[in-house]
Amino acid sequence: MHSEFELITRFFTPDPPGSEAGVALGVGDDCTLLAPTPGQRLAVSVDTSVAGSHFPEDAPAMAIGHRALAVSLSDLAAMGARARWCLMSLTLPAADDDAWLADFARGFHALCAATGTALVGGDVTRGELAIGVTVMGEVPPEQPLTRGGARPGDLLAVTGALGGGAGGLALWRRGERALEHPLLRRYLHPLPRLEAGLALRGLASAAIDISDGLLADLGHLLEASGVGAELTPAALPLAEGLVAALGKEPAREAGLHGGDDYELLLGFPPDHLDEARARLAALDLPLTVIGRFSAEPGIRGVAMTGARGWQHFTGDAAP
Amino acid sequence: MHSEFELITRFFTPDPPGSEAGVALGVGDDCTLLAPTPGQRLAVSVDTSVAGSHFPEDAPAMAIGHRALAVSLSDLAAMGARARWCLMSLTLPAADDDAWLADFARGFHALCAATGTALVGGDVTRGELAIGVTVMGEVPPEQPLTRGGARPGDLLAVTGALGGGAGGLALWRRGERALEHPLLRRYLHPLPRLEAGLALRGLASAAIDISDGLLADLGHLLEASGVGAELTPAALPLAEGLVAALGKEPAREAGLHGGDDYELLLGFPPDHLDEARARLAALDLPLTVIGRFSAEPGIRGVAMTGARGWQHFTGDAAP
Repeated sequence: MHSEFELITRFFTPDPPGSEAGVALGVGDDCTLLAPTPGQRLAVSVDTSVAGSHFPEDAPAMAIGHRALAVSLSDLAAMGARARWCLMSLTLPAADDDAWLADFARGFHALCAATGTALVGGDVTRGELAIGVTVMGEVPPEQPLTRGGARPGDLLAVTGALGGGAGGLALWRRGERALEHPLLRRYLHPLPRLEAGLALRGLASAAIDISDGLLADLGHLLEASGVGAELTPAALPLAEGLVAALGKEPAREAGLHGGDDYELLLGFPPDHLDEARARLAALDLPLTVIGRFSAEPGIRGVAMTGARGWQHFTGDAAP
Repeated sequence: MHSEFELITRFFTPDPPGSEAGVALGVGDDCTLLAPTPGQRLAVSVDTSVAGSHFPEDAPAMAIGHRALAVSLSDLAAMGARARWCLMSLTLPAADDDAWLADFARGFHALCAATGTALVGGDVTRGELAIGVTVMGEVPPEQPLTRGGARPGDLLAVTGALGGGAGGLALWRRGERALEHPLLRRYLHPLPRLEAGLALRGLASAAIDISDGLLADLGHLLEASGVGAELTPAALPLAEGLVAALGKEPAREAGLHGGDDYELLLGFPPDHLDEARARLAALDLPLTVIGRFSAEPGIRGVAMTGARGWQHFTGDAAP
């Protein structure tokens, strides 16, 4: 069995820290010392992914590493924050598997590199497989995207496509293992919308990431903003291949209730929409208007009977 | 079963954030927004405490909450950092127990309050009981205490007393449940030496906290500093009641190898010692010289046969 120290040095030693990364003292002391950018707010969030609860235990190790970081980075995206640093708490079963660990680390590090996020600390303990990731990002004080800024008359819009997380999980449960399948890719390899969050600073009136399902997360946003919304369910941009894989009605349910999509749900003053669309088009990311905010509380335009949030891997809300 | 949201709001909602706490946007959005002090380094660390591995599952809930935060804060203390913020990842078994949770939260919040640490985020998942705590503190760029600064000729010193963590655990295993017993208190209710770390900025040449045992952590410090040390084992300040509880030789072993003490192990240029002692005396905390650093590598003055680091709760290094 590896000691914690061996594990960290073998698989998780970050690149040599440089001042450009804002790391004044890297891994190997009691704490890491960071140099935050003066005048910026520090955006922090933590998410823990537990095997069997948030992902199937037999998911590919690279995907587990990728997803564990992606779900935390998605929270930074929803604030319009620039990703800077992360710490990882890895709880591993007693039996080591070097190949598994190497793949896990590869998935984690690849997303670090792709998003400019420096892994600056962590710990390894023994127990049921779980990964806790704390992320830290930066955002100008006047520009954070919050859940609380939507106003009646604002447009309700969503990036990318919906239902792919639920669809991919459904396929995985059926035994589909072709990792290049677009739906499996959506579920196992979600891309946090960090660049979109940055691009929409100053344009969006409100934002939240869709981790628990469109309706559940819309509910959070409405509550924080003190408004309601009129949805246009026919406008929902469903993930590629979703209807073919699940059938029409389950696909619609996945778009409304399925979680693990990690798209951004946004509010916009109507006259900001064209600029927002243009900025996201530059990122090759669609932006679809799916409704409008209103003063009247609640969600209209969709039957809410039986509606409930996504329970991730274990939930029976999955199609 | 509580939902995550209910749990967080019922037991872990922090005090209303105020600008004095450096919290620009508190719990309830995708991220918390913090306002770091301009010009300071941000010290960050994460530690995960797993039931059965880092503490007995039947330990008092208040103690579990206290210890989970204390072990992380101890890392800030060892850097000379001022504690500012923390995030908690709580993994709970499926069966809820409101009384347990309330006690756990009480222990956690009490140490937050005592140390000026604001709980600014977290998550709750289901699984084996485990608590991951990310702490963030601040330290002036020119004043961090690190493991790498000890020089030959510096004095080796330790705050407080040693062996109390191991002694308390041994008593707990024997069935001792009088929580006011000094050794049980040392084990279940360790006090991170944050004030000492602040007081020793600019005086200590090196610091590490003793979580894995004196010799193991001394080894880390020596490696980082590129020096050796001559120990004076007879000088070790053993915890009150330790010899009476364990016997003379096991008490000595607990002082050398026992972990979970969360004292600071420090290096000092000899002419800094009096000032350091005076500052810690003002905190009612003893500072004991237990050896001296040398150019020759390794640890001398103590038989190293069988010496090994503390394995926390499960380890057989415990007396």
